[in-house]
Amino acid sequence: SLKVPALQLHVSKTAMGASQKDFENAMNQVKLLKEDPGNEVKLKLYALYKQATEGPCNTPKPGVFDLINKAKWEAWNALGSLPKETARQNYVDLVSGLSSSSDSSSQAKPEADRKQAEYETVVMTSEDGITKIMLNRPAKKNALTEQMYQEIMLALEAASKDDSTITVLTGNGDYYSSGNDLTNFTNIPPEGVEAKAKNSAILLRNFVGSFIDFPKPLVAVVNGPAVGISVTVLGLFDLVYATDRATFHTPFSHLGQTPEGCSSYTFPKIMGPAKAAEMLIFGKKLTAGEAYAQGLVTEVFPDSTFQKEVWTRLKAYSKLPQNALRISKQIIRSQEKEKLHAVNAKESSILQERWLSSECMNAIMNFFSQKAKL
Amino acid sequence: SLKVPALQLHVSKTAMGASQKDFENAMNQVKLLKEDPGNEVKLKLYALYKQATEGPCNTPKPGVFDLINKAKWEAWNALGSLPKETARQNYVDLVSGLSSSSDSSSQAKPEADRKQAEYETVVMTSEDGITKIMLNRPAKKNALTEQMYQEIMLALEAASKDDSTITVLTGNGDYYSSGNDLTNFTNIPPEGVEAKAKNSAILLRNFVGSFIDFPKPLVAVVNGPAVGISVTVLGLFDLVYATDRATFHTPFSHLGQTPEGCSSYTFPKIMGPAKAAEMLIFGKKLTAGEAYAQGLVTEVFPDSTFQKEVWTRLKAYSKLPQNALRISKQIIRSQEKEKLHAVNAKESSILQERWLSSECMNAIMNFFSQKAKL
Amino acid sequence: SLKVPALQLHVSKTAMGASQKDFENAMNQVKLLKEDPGNEVKLKLYALYKQATEGPCNTPKPGVFDLINKAKWEAWNALGSLPKETARQNYVDLVSGLSSSSDSSSQAKPEADRKQAEYETVVMTSEDGITKIMLNRPAKKNALTEQMYQEIMLALEAASKDDSTITVLTGNGDYYSSGNDLTNFTNIPPEGVEAKAKNSAILLRNFVGSFIDFPKPLVAVVNGPAVGISVTVLGLFDLVYATDRATFHTPFSHLGQTPEGCSSYTFPKIMGPAKAAEMLIFGKKLTAGEAYAQGLVTEVFPDSTFQKEVWTRLKAYSKLPQNALRISKQIIRSQEKEKLHAVNAKESSILQERWLSSECMNAIMNFFSQKAKL
Repeated sequence: SLKVPALQLHVSKTAMGASQKDFENAMNQVKLLKEDPGNEVKLKLYALYKQATEGPCNTPKPGVFDLINKAKWEAWNALGSLPKETARQNYVDLVSGLSSSSDSSSQAKPEADRKQAEYETVVMTSEDGITKIMLNRPAKKNALTEQMYQEIMLALEAASKDDSTITVLTGNGDYYSSGNDLTNFTNIPPEGVEAKAKNSAILLRNFVGSFIDFPKPLVAVVNGPAVGISVTVLGLFDLVYATDRATFHTPFSHLGQTPEGCSSYTFPKIMGPAKAAEMLIFGKKLTAGEAYAQGLVTEVFPDSTFQKEVWTRLKAYSKLPQNALRISKQIIRSQEKEKLHAVNAKESSILQERWLSSECMNAIMNFFSQKAKL
Repeated sequence: SLKVPALQLHVSKTAMGASQKDFENAMNQVKLLKEDPGNEVKLKLYALYKQATEGPCNTPKPGVFDLINKAKWEAWNALGSLPKETARQNYVDLVSGLSSSSDSSSQAKPEADRKQAEYETVVMTSEDGITKIMLNRPAKKNALTEQMYQEIMLALEAASKDDSTITVLTGNGDYYSSGNDLTNFTNIPPEGVEAKAKNSAILLRNFVGSFIDFPKPLVAVVNGPAVGISVTVLGLFDLVYATDRATFHTPFSHLGQTPEGCSSYTFPKIMGPAKAAEMLIFGKKLTAGEAYAQGLVTEVFPDSTFQKEVWTRLKAYSKLPQNALRISKQIIRSQEKEKLHAVNAKESSILQERWLSSECMNAIMNFFSQKAKL
Repeated sequence: SLKVPALQLHVSKTAMGASQKDFENAMNQVKLLKEDPGNEVKLKLYALYKQATEGPCNTPKPGVFDLINKAKWEAWNALGSLPKETARQNYVDLVSGLSSSSDSSSQAKPEADRKQAEYETVVMTSEDGITKIMLNRPAKKNALTEQMYQEIMLALEAASKDDSTITVLTGNGDYYSSGNDLTNFTNIPPEGVEAKAKNSAILLRNFVGSFIDFPKPLVAVVNGPAVGISVTVLGLFDLVYATDRATFHTPFSHLGQTPEGCSSYTFPKIMGPAKAAEMLIFGKKLTAGEAYAQGLVTEVFPDSTFQKEVWTRLKAYSKLPQNALRISKQIIRSQEKEKLHAVNAKESSILQERWLSSECMNAIMNFFSQKAKL
């Protein structure tokens, strides 16, 4: 499928703010979308548009029976005092995500960025010594499909070899990532479920392995709620910055599953067994503040200034001597790299068995049937 | 000795509250006690009775020379605004503990629970997918005798094989446990002190080993002060819930002794060396809040709602997929199981030497002679 | 060079306060200094003298053009409500440090303490079961020269064998230590830079090794800002007490260098990777409160009561059974001693390479040229 490099360029400018022209382009882009992005995204686009053009919500709340206008009003009002420029930027970013995952080929430019052409589900940009890998399925809360696992690994491989100093993983839209896309479980190949479980375990192990082996400082910019494997691998990052809107949730046992991403080793080490078990065994969801108190998160920022503060910080860090940063990260990692690979192998192999258990299958079926009822 | 299953049934109902009939049975039970439970327990029974029947203390404080009535008034007043139902429940629980360790055989029912018949110093009950092992020497602050070490091991072995999902360790009465019963040291066999030290080290190692190897989620419900080995093994639990009345104290060096329960490994890991040394080397006592801040405790609850909140939480957790919980716990433990066994062996063998040192013997003798003076 | 044992005696009395006579001696001592201690120290001496004799600053602030008097006023005023006795003590301590590193031989007493005679850059005293090793180059913020590394190792060796229970490391003057003295890098031997780097790596490895192997409880009394290796080895102490004036800073990457002191292992273990990377990779400076929250520091005290509270605490601890303390410390250390030595070897060998890199050389040259401009 074709990509929209012009828009990806805007995304890479996040920290400097989108221009009025970027904003207008994005508005045109929305009209060309071939796939309905869903009500949630449409409400978000409405709210950001109003905030970007009129500022904070200034109209009286519609009556209780005026359902649609009430939903729109609430979406706008929820943005509080978000600055106009930030709203404009968020609008442009959100549309960019929708466009590149949709088939809006009419906007494609001939001079497409070679690097980006390889990816459909992530956007990769590089600027100021920082390579940014942005998960880009906002309409699906950045749930991780098999394609996405593969593309993230490719993007990490590319980032490890480019001339950047720091690599960032973040999400487009309201979510950081809602974790493993459960439709992965419904897509059974002709070889049957056992082959499926085996392949999934290999994919998982390779995916986590690419975080263990990543050779440069790796930063998570957690722009919203994080679920499942997007949380567990955070123990393998060097810095984790979170908006105060972020939450951290690993509901493995609810789905008949068990921890991955080396979390069975890293979480008890980071927060002690008595707090790790709450998350990993019993599926407790942490707020950003709680995740900070437990040491999983480096720093929490107010959502309204999150992007600005984080990118200012990272740009300053990216000017430090590159080799010293890289080697410092590698010394720290080397103290437990072997252990991490062994943990990863064990967790993946136990999950392979779990996926074939009736307990796990029933839990996932329940999930889908409950979702269908809603 | 005979047990009192009818009363044990009441204990297992903790979270639901004791009925008026349970309360009346307990009052009759008290009259039948053949062993004096001691002044401390009698004051506690008085206070709980008053609180259960009249509510918070509402009489003026007796004069300074009216010693007995002042002690009774203070015991009642110390219960603050404890709800009547909770006081009733605590009264029933406390009596149950006294009865089962006393020889109140006249109450024994023919249909005695097979499982319980094996234990004299703990009460074991199972309900709602939760097996509860309750230390049951409240008049001795649940200090651990050699018999108690053995019975806890047997109870853990039984719990590991029953069909429950979660296992809980807790204490009856005001204390969680005051740690190793120092009279263990005065009971020297004909073979002499060296044989005694050797046997004690083996007992200790096996005791701690049964926590390391326990295969299901293990929860400590810390209902009051915890001392010595009852604190150190907390590093081997999955969840540690504490009342705000709880304290955590490991005064090893004061008694010429050294850390056990794998704490020389788990505590520095949980709280860092600079906080672990305060407790393990210098014997600093932590409040519940401090233990929470250091990551030793999962969550602290107000004493007045402690039992209700904890059991509601645990009942919800026990409904999660059983195998996923069990396997998740085992993956986490597997990351350091060998290390824990090696630490346990080393700590036990060093304590065996310590117990024979004059420094340790003198410290324990001092303890007894100071106690005699009080 | 000759030492001033009479003054060292005063230093060892820190916790009890300097007498009026000590103070007058120190004032005479200042007049005999043969080396100019620099403006910073002279202002400090002025301020402490005023505070000790007149109490808190009570004169109006001089005009903006009266530069010298303004600097003096500000130094005095900065002492706030510091008690007169503390100011007197600090004056005596500061002069003692200046005297022993200067050549004020006229004050030397014939009955010089044998132990101290070996040291020029540290002061070693023993009292109440506590051996205190005080870094003693206050005019240079206790920056660590090669001689100082050697003398600290000798002092630790002596402390490990004396009859004290606890060993303390602290700094004289306003700083705990400003870390490695960068003039170490400018002092290139005839054998060339490679030999220099190799020898420095061996020195570093031996220095850190003497902390890993230290057999008794080791306490850091962090009396002011700590930088570089004086921070990283804190992970190898048993207790770390800090004044609220202390800061903790490891700006390795700014100087093209990488972590040492086992911090690449101990810091992630103590504070989790997401906080350790901020310090070790990106050089974030922590306040005393932040270092406490991250578990690097055992307790923080207000500067005005710091010395009094810490020494009271340590004297109580030093009365506990000596062998139990020593063996408890050794059990805790034994759980990771091999690992620590391996980490130390690796960190030192990587630094040896780093010191020869152009990135590191340029960063250090920049540091000196910027300093020259100030």
